[in-house]
Amino acid sequence: MSINIPRGTQDILPGEVELWQRIEKKARELCEKYQYQEIRTPIFEHTDLFSRGVGDTTDIVQKEMYTFEDRGGRSITLRPEGTASTVRAFVEKKMFGLPGQPVKLYYMGPMFRYERPQSGRFRQFVQFGVEALGSNDPAIDAEVISLAMNLYKEMGLSKLKLIINSLGDKESRNTHREALINHFKPRIGEFCSDCQNRLEKNPLRILDCKQDRDHELMKTAPSIIDYLNEESKAYFGKVQQYLTQLDIEFEVDPNLVRGLDYYNHTAFEIMSNAEGFGAITTLCGGGRYNGLVEEIGGPETPGIGFALSIERFIAALKAEGIEMEINQGIDCYLAALGEEAKDYTVGLLQQLRLAGFSAERDYLYRKIKAQFKAADRLQARYVAVLGDDELQNNKINVKNMETGEQVEVELDSLVNYFQGLKG
Amino acid sequence: MSINIPRGTQDILPGEVELWQRIEKKARELCEKYQYQEIRTPIFEHTDLFSRGVGDTTDIVQKEMYTFEDRGGRSITLRPEGTASTVRAFVEKKMFGLPGQPVKLYYMGPMFRYERPQSGRFRQFVQFGVEALGSNDPAIDAEVISLAMNLYKEMGLSKLKLIINSLGDKESRNTHREALINHFKPRIGEFCSDCQNRLEKNPLRILDCKQDRDHELMKTAPSIIDYLNEESKAYFGKVQQYLTQLDIEFEVDPNLVRGLDYYNHTAFEIMSNAEGFGAITTLCGGGRYNGLVEEIGGPETPGIGFALSIERFIAALKAEGIEMEINQGIDCYLAALGEEAKDYTVGLLQQLRLAGFSAERDYLYRKIKAQFKAADRLQARYVAVLGDDELQNNKINVKNMETGEQVEVELDSLVNYFQGLKG
Repeated sequence: MSINIPRGTQDILPGEVELWQRIEKKARELCEKYQYQEIRTPIFEHTDLFSRGVGDTTDIVQKEMYTFEDRGGRSITLRPEGTASTVRAFVEKKMFGLPGQPVKLYYMGPMFRYERPQSGRFRQFVQFGVEALGSNDPAIDAEVISLAMNLYKEMGLSKLKLIINSLGDKESRNTHREALINHFKPRIGEFCSDCQNRLEKNPLRILDCKQDRDHELMKTAPSIIDYLNEESKAYFGKVQQYLTQLDIEFEVDPNLVRGLDYYNHTAFEIMSNAEGFGAITTLCGGGRYNGLVEEIGGPETPGIGFALSIERFIAALKAEGIEMEINQGIDCYLAALGEEAKDYTVGLLQQLRLAGFSAERDYLYRKIKAQFKAADRLQARYVAVLGDDELQNNKINVKNMETGEQVEVELDSLVNYFQGLKG
Repeated sequence: MSINIPRGTQDILPGEVELWQRIEKKARELCEKYQYQEIRTPIFEHTDLFSRGVGDTTDIVQKEMYTFEDRGGRSITLRPEGTASTVRAFVEKKMFGLPGQPVKLYYMGPMFRYERPQSGRFRQFVQFGVEALGSNDPAIDAEVISLAMNLYKEMGLSKLKLIINSLGDKESRNTHREALINHFKPRIGEFCSDCQNRLEKNPLRILDCKQDRDHELMKTAPSIIDYLNEESKAYFGKVQQYLTQLDIEFEVDPNLVRGLDYYNHTAFEIMSNAEGFGAITTLCGGGRYNGLVEEIGGPETPGIGFALSIERFIAALKAEGIEMEINQGIDCYLAALGEEAKDYTVGLLQQLRLAGFSAERDYLYRKIKAQFKAADRLQARYVAVLGDDELQNNKINVKNMETGEQVEVELDSLVNYFQGLKG
């Protein structure tokens, strides 16, 4: 009996993995230009980290985490996102004390959420994200946004929509919070029990509620934008100024909120506008979290970042009909006739490869005709044919598969011959 | 209170992550030359896969797996190695039916074993491995070994030792098995209870026992090498002939065994000879597993592969004193004096980056002197200084940090200026 892949996960096979590699390579290159350096944190963390770092009133922590006890009885959770782990490492490794501030990091790897599997949603998915820790300059908010936008654009996406908002500073948020409570309190009995709990704890999250989203009080709820104090307004103004300077179009959406206490100022999402992309259009989400480092046990440190899913990135590329040339073909296929010749190609193959050429031979004892077929399948630019006779005479026959032209080359100098073709 | 990283895991931070990236890049390049393509399988699988694919008499399955129930009540295990998952995908995605055979795959990613943490051993570690499925040609055994050896060599390792052995085919193994049982049976009471269990189930694994390794019967145990039938001997001979042809030195070690039923023919290990490398010297292990695909539910398919740990790879590089030039420095640091100039650099920075240059600016409202210090820390090759005056005159001052030479450049054409320097 065969064993299947776990539900909600996927294998990424040759033929599609090349697109993943391409996106990841582009992300790494862009991070180098933008001076973000990679950090790798473990796949699992102590559960406590996410209760604190993601927030124990969130759906992620309440319903979607892969939490289990390890053999030592500790509660361990497969990371549902990358920010909490990055900040944990920043605190634990005392990176706040490094001479180069702000600390600009990126991560790339699998995340885990136990959700109902559906089109475009996986229980294991890959996120690329960046975090800039230690700066309060609105220019870095713009930089973080532009990094994400440029990654999408450089991969060919054009149907993008950026929405931004400001959640203000602590003072602004507190005034807004009061206004929200006053707004909902008189009729909170009409809302779901989750929302009733949220009223005093975290009224901002009422605005996110899927169950109550059509209640009339939702539309008239006080908007954070109207409660920003002067400083917060100025900060948000600067972010918008810089985005304009960077030729990045955006829309301000006062409904874009993030329910956790340590989020503040800039919040943003990038969506796909492509037709037929499906219901979930958000590709990337991010924002400022000036309170998070303290929450995780570090000194007061401002931070901003984003996370984007590679799965949705690929879905957006497909929705826009963007295809990549993937199979580049190999340089040389070594075909052989006769046992001695076959044996000889073992060493010859290695010489070609170590000299930098992609090369292949047959491993199935195939006849010469089937070897040529295999060469075609690999889109070999050249096929070099060695028979036992040629071997005796120190010769090999090289066929250019595009022109059909054939030449006889000294067996000893086959690598030189290919180097000559290249140079 | 701060939260720590889980025991036995590690963060890989900027400064060391570059070496990981270098090794991974080299491995990918080599795989492309050798025509191995990447496969990505999930971090966790149904527990059953490893019981069958790794073997439920092994320490890994019995003591070291991270096994837990997911929210749907399924038994799930964090993968302890990569071969079982690769073969599961090969079977489930029917890759045995693909036109291009053998199917040559590689994987790279974290694996998990709950072991006692010690120097060089982690509970989460990263493996790079290859699997060639579908060929019975001893040339592919040699190819797999040479890929691993060349990866080490191209990264600079020279103190390597390759040991190989043959476990023979089924017939040879059965005769050897009988001989082992006859050898141990009369005195099996002197062995540990694990070994007593192994006697009839899997006597080969007695030879692996750490507890009984000094028992006198161990030294005199019948060696598989003496029980190889003609076919197995011929196969092993070919593998050795090819390795010699590839200039790869090796030693035959009849004690190198793998205890699982579906292992056969070639087994190999690559060790570090470097002084001070520590007790565990194995860097890479691999071999042929012609029965595994069937065990996982697929058609009879030969296979061979290896797995190596990146952690030990790095330890070996350190033991040989091999250091990599890592920090390459950035192309340009944009220093600014005055608020308007600072604002202007936001756009200028982006222009430089999108033109392919690595560039940075200040995000901490630092004075000009501190900005130059930051530029030094980033090993900037050029510092471009913009004041509000220069901004008005559409000029910027560019300083070559190596020569100290300064030139004034039109602000609009700074990117052109850098492109000129490059070209």
